Amino acid sequence: MAGPSKTLETFPNPSPDRDYEIAFDVPEFTCLCPLTGQPDFAHFKIRYVPDQTCVELKSLKLYFWSYRNEGAFHEAVTNRVRDDLVAALSPRSLTVVGDWFVRGGIGTVITVSYRKP
Amino acid sequence: MAGPSKTLETFPNPSPDRDYEIAFDVPEFTCLCPLTGQPDFAHFKIRYVPDQTCVELKSLKLYFWSYRNEGAFHEAVTNRVRDDLVAALSPRSLTVVGDWFVRGGIGTVITVSYRKP
Amino acid sequence: MAGPSKTLETFPNPSPDRDYEIAFDVPEFTCLCPLTGQPDFAHFKIRYVPDQTCVELKSLKLYFWSYRNEGAFHEAVTNRVRDDLVAALSPRSLTVVGDWFVRGGIGTVITVSYRKP
Amino acid sequence: MAGPSKTLETFPNPSPDRDYEIAFDVPEFTCLCPLTGQPDFAHFKIRYVPDQTCVELKSLKLYFWSYRNEGAFHEAVTNRVRDDLVAALSPRSLTVVGDWFVRGGIGTVITVSYRKP
Amino acid sequence: MAGPSKTLETFPNPSPDRDYEIAFDVPEFTCLCPLTGQPDFAHFKIRYVPDQTCVELKSLKLYFWSYRNEGAFHEAVTNRVRDDLVAALSPRSLTVVGDWFVRGGIGTVITVSYRKP
Amino acid sequence: MAGPSKTLETFPNPSPDRDYEIAFDVPEFTCLCPLTGQPDFAHFKIRYVPDQTCVELKSLKLYFWSYRNEGAFHEAVTNRVRDDLVAALSPRSLTVVGDWFVRGGIGTVITVSYRKP
Amino acid sequence: MAGPSKTLETFPNPSPDRDYEIAFDVPEFTCLCPLTGQPDFAHFKIRYVPDQTCVELKSLKLYFWSYRNEGAFHEAVTNRVRDDLVAALSPRSLTVVGDWFVRGGIGTVITVSYRKP
Amino acid sequence: MAGPSKTLETFPNPSPDRDYEIAFDVPEFTCLCPLTGQPDFAHFKIRYVPDQTCVELKSLKLYFWSYRNEGAFHEAVTNRVRDDLVAALSPRSLTVVGDWFVRGGIGTVITVSYRKP
Amino acid sequence: MAGPSKTLETFPNPSPDRDYEIAFDVPEFTCLCPLTGQPDFAHFKIRYVPDQTCVELKSLKLYFWSYRNEGAFHEAVTNRVRDDLVAALSPRSLTVVGDWFVRGGIGTVITVSYRKP
Amino acid sequence: MAGPSKTLETFPNPSPDRDYEIAFDVPEFTCLCPLTGQPDFAHFKIRYVPDQTCVELKSLKLYFWSYRNEGAFHEAVTNRVRDDLVAALSPRSLTVVGDWFVRGGIGTVITVSYRKP
Repeated sequence: MAGPSKTLETFPNPSPDRDYEIAFDVPEFTCLCPLTGQPDFAHFKIRYVPDQTCVELKSLKLYFWSYRNEGAFHEAVTNRVRDDLVAALSPRSLTVVGDWFVRGGIGTVITVSYRKP
Repeated sequence: MAGPSKTLETFPNPSPDRDYEIAFDVPEFTCLCPLTGQPDFAHFKIRYVPDQTCVELKSLKLYFWSYRNEGAFHEAVTNRVRDDLVAALSPRSLTVVGDWFVRGGIGTVITVSYRKP
Repeated sequence: MAGPSKTLETFPNPSPDRDYEIAFDVPEFTCLCPLTGQPDFAHFKIRYVPDQTCVELKSLKLYFWSYRNEGAFHEAVTNRVRDDLVAALSPRSLTVVGDWFVRGGIGTVITVSYRKP
Repeated sequence: MAGPSKTLETFPNPSPDRDYEIAFDVPEFTCLCPLTGQPDFAHFKIRYVPDQTCVELKSLKLYFWSYRNEGAFHEAVTNRVRDDLVAALSPRSLTVVGDWFVRGGIGTVITVSYRKP
Repeated sequence: MAGPSKTLETFPNPSPDRDYEIAFDVPEFTCLCPLTGQPDFAHFKIRYVPDQTCVELKSLKLYFWSYRNEGAFHEAVTNRVRDDLVAALSPRSLTVVGDWFVRGGIGTVITVSYRKP
Repeated sequence: MAGPSKTLETFPNPSPDRDYEIAFDVPEFTCLCPLTGQPDFAHFKIRYVPDQTCVELKSLKLYFWSYRNEGAFHEAVTNRVRDDLVAALSPRSLTVVGDWFVRGGIGTVITVSYRKP
Repeated sequence: MAGPSKTLETFPNPSPDRDYEIAFDVPEFTCLCPLTGQPDFAHFKIRYVPDQTCVELKSLKLYFWSYRNEGAFHEAVTNRVRDDLVAALSPRSLTVVGDWFVRGGIGTVITVSYRKP
Repeated sequence: MAGPSKTLETFPNPSPDRDYEIAFDVPEFTCLCPLTGQPDFAHFKIRYVPDQTCVELKSLKLYFWSYRNEGAFHEAVTNRVRDDLVAALSPRSLTVVGDWFVRGGIGTVITVSYRKP
Repeated sequence: MAGPSKTLETFPNPSPDRDYEIAFDVPEFTCLCPLTGQPDFAHFKIRYVPDQTCVELKSLKLYFWSYRNEGAFHEAVTNRVRDDLVAALSPRSLTVVGDWFVRGGIGTVITVSYRKP
Repeated sequence: MAGPSKTLETFPNPSPDRDYEIAFDVPEFTCLCPLTGQPDFAHFKIRYVPDQTCVELKSLKLYFWSYRNEGAFHEAVTNRVRDDLVAALSPRSLTVVGDWFVRGGIGTVITVSYRKP
């Protein structure tokens, strides 16, 4: 059984002649608070327009698993997910939404996008 | 009783003098995973602006049935539905949404559009 | 008691100096399938910007009643409702949405608009 | 194509050794107001525990169709549906719910049950 | 056109041989606060098991209209609706729910029932 | 206790250096049908960008109360609310939505806007 | 203007000959954490069957206001609200629900009832 | 990769000293209509109180897959799922709900239970 | 900062003279699959009637955290949470619900209760 | 334990090379009516695009707490929250929404934005 990994596998986009959107709903995400070491939880949503490659679903699952024992600030980890996906896929556009569970009575949602120049 | 078929029947658009939208909600779709042979399920939504022809509802049902025993990747089959509808209808515009059930804890929604040049 | 009628009564727009929207929600519509004679049902929604006249609510009710024993294809009847309202009201703009009940496992929503040249 | 009919077809209950429930959701019902002749609409829900026979789905559709041109008071037609189903099926128990659309600003829901002595 | 009236018209129960429930949803109710004279609003829900008579829908509408210019405490008016319906219908059982709009940041729902001895 | 009044009180906008939106949700509105004298009910929603003045909440309540015993067509009263607010506030922009309860099986929503020239 | 007070005003039950339920929805409650002094928030729901007296709505509002600057554990304050209402009303039965906002990623709902012996 | 199979694997109940409920939500089910050969779809829900054994989740998935190419009436297949689970698990109690998609404008929900004598 | 711990802290029930319910909603739970080592996620709900002691909220948070790196079958861990709470609190009654995320297209909800003899 | 404070702490934006949005959901807000001294409640929502700094979540909680004992008009406090956040963060853009609870039967939502010149 494959384990957690920051490596994102890809496969060739079957229809690179057109712009179309692939969206993932990822309700299972947890990492650690870098200050206290306590668990944080978030619900991620990703949507992107592929260029030459698409991300393989199983490797995406393992990618999110890889944060399980890492400390990560809300703002930083949401931006890193965007950066890692951009590096692996070089998509035409991409949006990452991290919906973080309530802390101090306040919920936080962070939305980061990318558009190929 | 007619059986599964990739043939999409059409009839003349009754009001070709105007742009208007026809939308279909198709909650009954299943195909097979091309890697494992296991069943996949999706909820398709289609909307299009007809030009000279409209798609006949019964043939649309048989068309979706025809995928039942075929292997098909999520990205590829959603794009193929778009291509087959474009080929049969030559619509002014078209959007196909494939909302695929959860695999590996992740749901996938693929949206493909077409606009007549 | 007035009976079903294709005649749409109107009254003068009380505020023709401005653009504003009137929207109707009509959950009670039925006609017959022109091929099989079986009943069809739909939920209509109308919104328009009046010009010099507004449609009278009771006559609108009788108008929709008038389809009860007529055969009508989904695409054709939705377009005809749009055409009859345009002819009676000459509105600045108009949208008719016909949300037809499931047939063959598929729901159909047809949206037709008009904008005064 | 079969037409409207008050005849309810049945087939043998495949599991008469046990009590189990069959429920139908029937959003497509219309009849006429016996006083004014105007259309009435309702959403029917039926649930029953079969004894020796089950009602055949297509005949149930034709049964509800048969009210389309008949005048019927809300209370009377809901009770009649119950009586006709009891006569055809002799079920162990049965409940009929008629959810009638708004008249005079008031919605009406009528619920009639039967239990085999 | 009939006006507001505390008189509740009835008609013979078409199926007095059985217990069944009739439920009304009445979102249009207003009266006056007996202390301040300011308008109060409520959403009433009624359900009853008829005995020999049923309440006629139009007279029920006029009945609720009759409170429009009367002062009435929440608790008292909800109980009075119950008493007037019991007097007019002598039902086998009855429940009246008055869902009163927010006052002082607090919403109030009053539920009164009756069961024939 | 203040009574119903068409007078809308205002107070100075605390932040006139910027555009911002104030929205009111008014579920308690009733007037009379000018043809039949029967009660009509609506749910009003207002949103506006203030200029030099804001409307005082209590006077807005009394303003809506003032329609209670007046006859008013749906289209006319929704436009009048817009005109009265524009006259009192001279706002930068304003939208009034009147969502009227079902009559003849049809719900009506009227939306009127204003933008300062 | 009356201020916060633990005194609950009452008035005579208008229909003490029957059991009926009065329910209050109180979304505006705040007190202080007795350990940290930080604000806590809750949404209270109360329902009771009155005996000889009903609680007056305005005094109920002032009663809940009186907790604003007091320290109170979740379990203790919910039980105290129940005890104070029982002491003031001597109701036939009573239920108090305190739905406390998320702390430490966990929401807490406390439900306390009373039934007259 | 394991294929479709009517065999239900089990494992020992970890807490056979108590009654507790296990519930499964199975939105992915399809079989064939035994009359027309056309696909049918359903959403199954199962809940049971285990005795000495629990059903293994993966074999449950393969079990539902095994109906994919079989003809099955709604009433019969829902009862058969109940019988197969009872045979494999000998549970203390069990309920199977089959929520079948709309056919002929009517949705069907079948609920079958079992209780160990 | 306190770390994960299976120790559940308690405090004296402030109102042991009565039965009342305390309910916790715990959306943040994760453990590992004992077969594959992959993460599992669940949403726990707990409700109990305290006897002499109540569970302290912060220790409950740390308790659920303690499963983060442990392998645990769905059925076993839900029963263990029940057993640990019973051992710590000796409550009058208790219910634990574990709502586990989708695996193999199937969601699982396990409900375990306890009642003091 | 830190107390209420109008001071908003910040930390460096981890990804200042891009525009991205941070959104906070703050359901716990209360202040006092400056006219009557009575409590007001609101649900705040904030979203902003950071420039060089982000607001620290705990200080944001303490900031909202600081209004607890201050008198504040709805329009003024919503604008002040916007001004204080702009002063502390100098964000690229910002929107503050204050959703105030019902007063006089009317709910009020105030939306204030900022965009860096």
